[in-house]
Amino acid sequence: MAGANEDLRRRRDQAFGAGAALFYDAPLTIVRGEGAYLFDAEGRRYVDLYNNVPCVGHANPRVVEAMARQQGTLNVHSRYLNEGAIAFAERLAALHGPQIESVIFSCSGTEANEIALRMARFATGRRGIVCTDGTYHGNSDLVSRLTYVNRRQPETDEVHAFPFPETYRPLKEGLSEAELCDAYLARLEDAIRRFEDSGAGFAGLIVCSIFANEGLPNIPVGFMARAEAMVHAAGGVVIADEVQAGYCRTGQWWGYQASGFTPDIVVTGKPMGNGLPLAATAASRKLVEGFRARTRYFNTFSSSPLQAAVGMAVIDEIEGRGLDKNVASVGAALKAALVQRKGAWSAIGDVRGLGLFVGVEMVKDGPAKEPDPELAAHVCERLKDRGFLTSNAGVFNNVVKIRPPLVFSQADAEQFLEAFDQTIAEPHG
Amino acid sequence: MAGANEDLRRRRDQAFGAGAALFYDAPLTIVRGEGAYLFDAEGRRYVDLYNNVPCVGHANPRVVEAMARQQGTLNVHSRYLNEGAIAFAERLAALHGPQIESVIFSCSGTEANEIALRMARFATGRRGIVCTDGTYHGNSDLVSRLTYVNRRQPETDEVHAFPFPETYRPLKEGLSEAELCDAYLARLEDAIRRFEDSGAGFAGLIVCSIFANEGLPNIPVGFMARAEAMVHAAGGVVIADEVQAGYCRTGQWWGYQASGFTPDIVVTGKPMGNGLPLAATAASRKLVEGFRARTRYFNTFSSSPLQAAVGMAVIDEIEGRGLDKNVASVGAALKAALVQRKGAWSAIGDVRGLGLFVGVEMVKDGPAKEPDPELAAHVCERLKDRGFLTSNAGVFNNVVKIRPPLVFSQADAEQFLEAFDQTIAEPHG
Repeated sequence: MAGANEDLRRRRDQAFGAGAALFYDAPLTIVRGEGAYLFDAEGRRYVDLYNNVPCVGHANPRVVEAMARQQGTLNVHSRYLNEGAIAFAERLAALHGPQIESVIFSCSGTEANEIALRMARFATGRRGIVCTDGTYHGNSDLVSRLTYVNRRQPETDEVHAFPFPETYRPLKEGLSEAELCDAYLARLEDAIRRFEDSGAGFAGLIVCSIFANEGLPNIPVGFMARAEAMVHAAGGVVIADEVQAGYCRTGQWWGYQASGFTPDIVVTGKPMGNGLPLAATAASRKLVEGFRARTRYFNTFSSSPLQAAVGMAVIDEIEGRGLDKNVASVGAALKAALVQRKGAWSAIGDVRGLGLFVGVEMVKDGPAKEPDPELAAHVCERLKDRGFLTSNAGVFNNVVKIRPPLVFSQADAEQFLEAFDQTIAEPHG
Repeated sequence: MAGANEDLRRRRDQAFGAGAALFYDAPLTIVRGEGAYLFDAEGRRYVDLYNNVPCVGHANPRVVEAMARQQGTLNVHSRYLNEGAIAFAERLAALHGPQIESVIFSCSGTEANEIALRMARFATGRRGIVCTDGTYHGNSDLVSRLTYVNRRQPETDEVHAFPFPETYRPLKEGLSEAELCDAYLARLEDAIRRFEDSGAGFAGLIVCSIFANEGLPNIPVGFMARAEAMVHAAGGVVIADEVQAGYCRTGQWWGYQASGFTPDIVVTGKPMGNGLPLAATAASRKLVEGFRARTRYFNTFSSSPLQAAVGMAVIDEIEGRGLDKNVASVGAALKAALVQRKGAWSAIGDVRGLGLFVGVEMVKDGPAKEPDPELAAHVCERLKDRGFLTSNAGVFNNVVKIRPPLVFSQADAEQFLEAFDQTIAEPHG
């Protein structure tokens, strides 16, 4: 098996070019999925605590059926009338507040964020985008300029970063939470002001609603509502990147509900199609039409009957099975159990999370909260050896990221906790 | 029915925002597809002479089966090892010459062209991209800067356009074809030189291998081979956008074979997944690895087992059914028959094409070859009334574009010609 894997890796380095990302020291060959489980070539089962894309479960039968039926009936571009994509857009918009009226579908979170950024620029006639200093929103030329995770790239005339809000490693020590909130807001204001001093002007703020790539921080209470007001006062628009935060990941439909703000533009992606490329940029009709008028945007594969049928099946599954409630209850119990482990292992510096998205921050001994990315990677490797798939994330790569499909059960969580306990009990380092 | 369509249009204007492109004065509600046919809500059959995406036929059973089987087995990102996507990349690379070794999969032609442009820039350390003055390569912030179709946007420091090569409306009258070729090459050279004079430097040339959006011109013999040599002499790379030109559209696998050049980077998209979002950027391993090292590119939905299974099924269908030969023979007969119509209707200024991609250029009476976009639109409307779907294209929007699925048959072509004859026989204008 090791030989077969080695051969596959060599072929992969040639076929994809070396440097294409691969998980684990000894990568897994995965051949089958079902619900919250993945299976390797030898039939070994892994509990999937990593994959948010197959949100209603790997190989979900309702999704498979919808996909096959639609592809076997009609899958064509959107310049003919077709009820499916229209109904899907209506349903998606209705999952938000009244400020969200219209939808532009695309194929990836990157494409959807491209649309959102350009929409903000067209609407304001200004260029400057503010993001956090630990974020990632996608891989295109434009969107990758917002990538600060692990690669503190220089600010440009058109992109300014502010320190992401967090209480674990606060901007300044010794402040109350309210004072800390003020301190972060001052930095956001500074990023906005610097655009006003330059020629670019301020177009908008883009954030992941739960700051997932930043490491899922606890944010000072009230920060996002006040940030929203500040952005609007400066004439900008607020973009919520819900690619990771949305679709009931937090136990509520949208991450911005958990973080307490109301975005002007909402970007969704990963879980929307349970693996089918599908993303969306949703906003007021005015914002959407402003974008369309400027670009005459057309996307060959999007707004298709296939995207619609699969997208509808995913929402049907979430609603029909009450997965939001599953996420809330299993997630809360899992987080509480992990919080309990904090005392048992000093390397656990912090446990944070919302719904089925939990981060366990690994630090070196001592009060300095020094990040320990090697230990986080080690924990992920040992959990994998035990049949549980996670990964490490955060700006220091020291956060064990737990983000299973929404169908992850209480029994799955209990098995995981057993493996987690074995992992922290064994010698390491 | 008209009322139902009106209602759907109103809902669509709200759900997508007004301005989302729609074909025909009275848009079609399409509900089903099969092979080269589409069917409206009333069961009326339309012969599809427009859609290149469902290349192996609407609702192709082999594709449906592959899609359902794979989605029901495994569809996950590419950071686990999976044989399918590797084998698909190997197979795709092997369809090119030896200079193409490695593949980066993505979800749309736009994403694949983004990768190609950035790859050229990283490889050369220079920024300047040359494209034609009548092109379209995609809809992102970066790629849309190359859009010159119907929107002569100003050149930028990083994008220069040269006049696309054609013999129908030559750059200068009274030249031999060899002299005309020289004249276009001089304009290409000028575009390159202007980068060398500026700070940007010259990174590369991107063209659709058959200049599809330009209106599918006949190009002076030898132009592309000499353009390739000129680009390489200037230290640039040649990007072939095969999104429309490739996958046997011309009767050969690649448009660059028909146009006689050897690209460094090949971009494919539309037909690859028969409707599943799937695209690729293929190049030498060195170019691909250079891009990966600079970007650590990762695309959630691409290089997936689903893309691989569907992509393989499409190639299986093309090869198994010998669709390249079908395209070559049906396309040649169709073009020859349309050329015959030229004399019968003076409004047909030119008939051009390669394989199953034929353009009929509509002009006003007289020697000036004045484009008649209204007539082209009228012809498309009347053909639609008769049950045949086409559209108009080209820089003047006056070319009736005939680009059916590759499974389009000789009998389909004969029925179309009958409808075409009826259309040109009736009063108009």
